[in-house]
Amino acid sequence: MIDKTTDYDSKDHVVFIGDKPFMNYVTGVIMQFTTQKAETSTIKARGKFISKAVDIAEVAAKRFLEGQIEVSTISIDSEGFKNTEGKDVRVSTIEIVLKKL
Amino acid sequence: MIDKTTDYDSKDHVVFIGDKPFMNYVTGVIMQFTTQKAETSTIKARGKFISKAVDIAEVAAKRFLEGQIEVSTISIDSEGFKNTEGKDVRVSTIEIVLKKL
Repeated sequence: MIDKTTDYDSKDHVVFIGDKPFMNYVTGVIMQFTTQKAETSTIKARGKFISKAVDIAEVAAKRFLEGQIEVSTISIDSEGFKNTEGKDVRVSTIEIVLKKL
Repeated sequence: MIDKTTDYDSKDHVVFIGDKPFMNYVTGVIMQFTTQKAETSTIKARGKFISKAVDIAEVAAKRFLEGQIEVSTISIDSEGFKNTEGKDVRVSTIEIVLKKL
């Protein structure tokens, strides 16, 4: 089930970063560790949202859940696809896995 | 010595990503592995340039030096400092280490 307020998938503990307000995503991550007792939470983003994903991971781990969670793994990749004009474009992606300490 | 065209430090094989053209940085990374025979090259960026840093790493590793280099480690952090108005602000940072295969 995708929560439309924060774009997180509560079953898999994944948060997809987009153009919603910054704190929606931070709250989404925090809730996965608190309300949902997740052991890990994965922050995923593409393109220009990658910087925002790193900010969200840092704020969650260093400010709100300091001493309770940490960055476990970070991976980057890129996907090629055709845009609306049929042109081949490439977009970078990031996955940041946070885990309970 | 800092090369002002690409902001790379040729001795330490570090490329600092800023607002110069995208391909300047890609060329900087490629030159470290080719002309300078580096074993590793580290891409560093802060704040909004983090997305650009990931793009540069992906383009260097998947397009220009495909099969020759790969992403070795990725780390994120954040730094607090006072801005020009004396206000405490926080900025996220990323370091992407590429290595020769």
